[in-house]
Amino acid sequence: MANTKTIRIGVIGAGRIGKIHAENLATRIPGVEVAAIADVNRTAAEETAARLHIEKACADYQDILGDKSIDAVAICSSTDTHSRLIMEVAAAGKHIFCEKPIDHDLARIDQALTSAKNAGVRLQIGFNRRFDPNFRKVRELVMAGKIGKPHLLRITSRDPAPPSPEYAKVSGGMFLDMTIHDFDMARYIVGSNVTEVYAAAGVLVDPRIGEAGDVDTALITLYFENGAIGTLDNSRQAVYGYDQRVEVFGSGGMVAVANNTPDTHVYSNGEGVQSAKPLYFFLERYTDSFINELKEFIKSIQEGTETPVTGMDGRIPVVMALAAKKSYLEHRPVKLSEIN
Amino acid sequence: MANTKTIRIGVIGAGRIGKIHAENLATRIPGVEVAAIADVNRTAAEETAARLHIEKACADYQDILGDKSIDAVAICSSTDTHSRLIMEVAAAGKHIFCEKPIDHDLARIDQALTSAKNAGVRLQIGFNRRFDPNFRKVRELVMAGKIGKPHLLRITSRDPAPPSPEYAKVSGGMFLDMTIHDFDMARYIVGSNVTEVYAAAGVLVDPRIGEAGDVDTALITLYFENGAIGTLDNSRQAVYGYDQRVEVFGSGGMVAVANNTPDTHVYSNGEGVQSAKPLYFFLERYTDSFINELKEFIKSIQEGTETPVTGMDGRIPVVMALAAKKSYLEHRPVKLSEIN
Amino acid sequence: MANTKTIRIGVIGAGRIGKIHAENLATRIPGVEVAAIADVNRTAAEETAARLHIEKACADYQDILGDKSIDAVAICSSTDTHSRLIMEVAAAGKHIFCEKPIDHDLARIDQALTSAKNAGVRLQIGFNRRFDPNFRKVRELVMAGKIGKPHLLRITSRDPAPPSPEYAKVSGGMFLDMTIHDFDMARYIVGSNVTEVYAAAGVLVDPRIGEAGDVDTALITLYFENGAIGTLDNSRQAVYGYDQRVEVFGSGGMVAVANNTPDTHVYSNGEGVQSAKPLYFFLERYTDSFINELKEFIKSIQEGTETPVTGMDGRIPVVMALAAKKSYLEHRPVKLSEIN
Amino acid sequence: MANTKTIRIGVIGAGRIGKIHAENLATRIPGVEVAAIADVNRTAAEETAARLHIEKACADYQDILGDKSIDAVAICSSTDTHSRLIMEVAAAGKHIFCEKPIDHDLARIDQALTSAKNAGVRLQIGFNRRFDPNFRKVRELVMAGKIGKPHLLRITSRDPAPPSPEYAKVSGGMFLDMTIHDFDMARYIVGSNVTEVYAAAGVLVDPRIGEAGDVDTALITLYFENGAIGTLDNSRQAVYGYDQRVEVFGSGGMVAVANNTPDTHVYSNGEGVQSAKPLYFFLERYTDSFINELKEFIKSIQEGTETPVTGMDGRIPVVMALAAKKSYLEHRPVKLSEIN
Repeated sequence: MANTKTIRIGVIGAGRIGKIHAENLATRIPGVEVAAIADVNRTAAEETAARLHIEKACADYQDILGDKSIDAVAICSSTDTHSRLIMEVAAAGKHIFCEKPIDHDLARIDQALTSAKNAGVRLQIGFNRRFDPNFRKVRELVMAGKIGKPHLLRITSRDPAPPSPEYAKVSGGMFLDMTIHDFDMARYIVGSNVTEVYAAAGVLVDPRIGEAGDVDTALITLYFENGAIGTLDNSRQAVYGYDQRVEVFGSGGMVAVANNTPDTHVYSNGEGVQSAKPLYFFLERYTDSFINELKEFIKSIQEGTETPVTGMDGRIPVVMALAAKKSYLEHRPVKLSEIN
Repeated sequence: MANTKTIRIGVIGAGRIGKIHAENLATRIPGVEVAAIADVNRTAAEETAARLHIEKACADYQDILGDKSIDAVAICSSTDTHSRLIMEVAAAGKHIFCEKPIDHDLARIDQALTSAKNAGVRLQIGFNRRFDPNFRKVRELVMAGKIGKPHLLRITSRDPAPPSPEYAKVSGGMFLDMTIHDFDMARYIVGSNVTEVYAAAGVLVDPRIGEAGDVDTALITLYFENGAIGTLDNSRQAVYGYDQRVEVFGSGGMVAVANNTPDTHVYSNGEGVQSAKPLYFFLERYTDSFINELKEFIKSIQEGTETPVTGMDGRIPVVMALAAKKSYLEHRPVKLSEIN
Repeated sequence: MANTKTIRIGVIGAGRIGKIHAENLATRIPGVEVAAIADVNRTAAEETAARLHIEKACADYQDILGDKSIDAVAICSSTDTHSRLIMEVAAAGKHIFCEKPIDHDLARIDQALTSAKNAGVRLQIGFNRRFDPNFRKVRELVMAGKIGKPHLLRITSRDPAPPSPEYAKVSGGMFLDMTIHDFDMARYIVGSNVTEVYAAAGVLVDPRIGEAGDVDTALITLYFENGAIGTLDNSRQAVYGYDQRVEVFGSGGMVAVANNTPDTHVYSNGEGVQSAKPLYFFLERYTDSFINELKEFIKSIQEGTETPVTGMDGRIPVVMALAAKKSYLEHRPVKLSEIN
Repeated sequence: MANTKTIRIGVIGAGRIGKIHAENLATRIPGVEVAAIADVNRTAAEETAARLHIEKACADYQDILGDKSIDAVAICSSTDTHSRLIMEVAAAGKHIFCEKPIDHDLARIDQALTSAKNAGVRLQIGFNRRFDPNFRKVRELVMAGKIGKPHLLRITSRDPAPPSPEYAKVSGGMFLDMTIHDFDMARYIVGSNVTEVYAAAGVLVDPRIGEAGDVDTALITLYFENGAIGTLDNSRQAVYGYDQRVEVFGSGGMVAVANNTPDTHVYSNGEGVQSAKPLYFFLERYTDSFINELKEFIKSIQEGTETPVTGMDGRIPVVMALAAKKSYLEHRPVKLSEIN
């Protein structure tokens, strides 16, 4: 088939997530070759290139933008560069995979989305959890009508350990940094947009997070366009590990997914019955989803179809996060239309 | 021991719950004998008396109040008679077990509590779920500090089938009729009082319930005095059966309880893996709790100690329900101090 | 209906199991009244009679046999009296519920069965586990063809604590005393008779059991008439509690049942995930089955139908136990036809 | 560290398992590079080499044996070539990873083991299940004494679909082809050797397998040197998918592992509660174990230590399989000493 040509991709950023994407692209995803990797830390780029048989390593991402043989770019640099890089990569006529969030500022997000649209390139945002086998199964059952009309959604999303107070300061706050994944998941699972949110939150894990102006525990009510209501609960510290669960209830049934564990052992002794804790954090928990999201990105380029997580899918959770923050600060429900 | 004398109890009401309590008292609870059962439907009282070897059946509950040999009374009549009967039984100097709710009106509740207090009789309200082995285990672990300081609470409480729209009209509404158990459970599990609530709700199950002025689906945020936040979710119709789960998360861990099932079978075939639905409704699910609550009531009389569910424990969930209703109607968080 | 007359029953034996049956008959089983209870220890009989409103207590069971108003007798005395009592009760023309095992001697069993047959009375043997909701569900699914043709059976049956070496001496050995329930369960679940057994066994729990001539751990292979093969495993000591599981695998699927627990709690902390141990022993685990077996006994008398556990159902597991013992001692597979 | 030099490995065989090992070595295992791949089907070798950036593809494995730069060889060709290739690779002075089984003939196995020993090269046999996270966890808990002294072992191992009758004919029979993994697992889990076996078996899945002289269903009793007894059950066809479970019971507790599933979803509706079937077959189920076994092989070369699955570990399960076959045919327990 003419349209299943091998896609040549460049990776911008050789930090933690850049390395993961580069390795997945180089070794686990058919139909793609990693043409180049760029990082201001040239050594990091070179080491990754050597390990993965990547043709070119460079310090300046412009070398990727200027390479006519390259079809697509994965933006894996720090969040504050995302919207600008989307515009530059779009201007270079290359398809874009960009890590989340696009930006914390809606105006800059809109500029980025417009530039990608005008350039006619594909844009996919890195909401990887949509590609997790558990959540995907929930979505499939809901979309197939297996639970009837959705009435209630519950998402639990708790990290194993809190960020440093320094990080809390620059991250944009828990809603934009952590809950943003859950905002996306809520829309994805229920198959409907949220119109209003109500956020209860507090500082229960670490007072220094509060001193940094952020919260570490939250319980957010969501009102969906289709009438369903939902709740997200977040904590920055679950001592038993990464807690990532979803449950949807509807007129025809319920579907829920539990945590993944490193093994299925059950150990019984005189004290009780014990089993494994959840996988520790997102690198262990979402391994497959990182592979799957790029497989689908490559496929959408090859087949000329819309990506499974569009620019608008990247924008909406930012609006939801801003509304949640406003709700928390003003202690009242906030409509998304107040933010947009 | 002098104080473990046999308690003679009279039962007022030989309807569904009256029969259950009478049978438990007569056959499963040591240290008590059922001296009489009264019901305006004398035949119902007589049939139950005959079946359970109860000495006396009567149409008029005054026969119980006037019997000096009777130490205690179980009030199992309709809700609108509860507060008045508490006052009359207290005036007769007998200890009182009263089904929930005491009343929908706070002033009448306060009168009833005052009369019991002034008469110096024990009063226990029938929040039976506190005596369920699952929820009791959760409470024990939380009180023992096993989850550290509580941060997040989640209660799921869904009925298998909606009430008739007629019932919805006279029941006082879902919050007072159904959620009231969950309001009590929230306080019991977290070991702290709720100060404020926010209720999201809707009519998703049956439009006739909406026409009757009630809701059938709700998601209620709770703010606890100790800083924890929680959520209750309710539906009047879970097609898979009675869904009764609790989860508490804290600084040191989490404890959750699942539904009980009629058996533990797991059946695997080419289609998938199947297991039993939850027990159908409260009669099947809470069998043990009905026995346990009366065991403890009898024990508190024998030992002269406070009952495990006091009059105030019966009053507070009514306040919570009224606050939830106000929150839903006014679309804003409501402090309990606005109600009291 | 003329045939649903109230059945009057006498209980012989007011020991542990006699008390359980008397209480169930008196308080949980409709259509029956306990007319008398007999025990050589008259005080035990009297106490039970008083507590349960039983008309008559006596030291001599002949008082029951001679009472024309009594329709049926529950034999709950020690094992060595069972076969003789069956004959005497049959001669008195009363229906018989008899605790297992009938006897350790096949000739005496045959005499007892013959006498019951000749007297035309119903006889039910107390293999209560058939009435456990878990095992009953397995049986139902197998009989309904849900697993296709049965191929493999696995029964796990482990006690929480070993008997005293003294008991081991008089009990007839583990196969007759403990495994006998599993032999019955095997036939019940697979719906086919066993033709041959192979027993591997050892003394791994307590050397004094070995000194008493018995084993405490066993793994028994069963060959069924219908071609299926199965295995039973036994231990006299599971430190985590009573372990009672069954699994059947067939051409169309598998069904398995797990242990019952006192509650469904799951507690997660930094160490792992913990849940409840199985219910401790048979009194807790098989509560419902003790009620159900007598319900069906009463029903079979009222309806004039065969009992659900016939005399022959009581005899066959004894044959299986004797074959297993022979297999263990001779270290070879043994056909049941070698025993009969 | 001088001894952590990069190991250069050649792969013999580019069939299904050869491709898996080549890909794992090339992309998922640090410290190794795939220097060459050989297959009589040169195209298969070349395609794999191209895809995985392998330097050399060849039709003749002698090209690998003659290459002085190559340190080790993975033998992934058909079973009938294993023992001969071990000898040739050993003679070439290269370390050996060899797929199981070594051979069906004990004399040829012994020759192969001797040649490897004499050449002083490392030899690891491909019993990959030892490296599965579930079974490894069981082993760890047993070795750490967490279950006390092992008493009872249960291994369930059932394939999702039967082999063709043609395959049954050439495979050496179910015990050598399929159960051999379970024989290895039994020794690995219990940490003790088996001294005697008793095999019950039959043809319940497909009569053509019986016509081919093989069985398709088995239940094998194992006697361990340390006194434990165990049972393996096999079926060639579990309609619900690949069933791979282990349970060990001992004086201090029990540990069991369940099947892995593609996701953790639980779907409840009016019919019941449904969840995912086990992963379909060994490629899906044992993905990680294939990676882990080669990681440890490479590590043992680098560190100059014994491999985790020695030649003798490869020989013993063949003896067990031959003993099981003899037991089945002669309908009696067979000591392993009768085979050796």
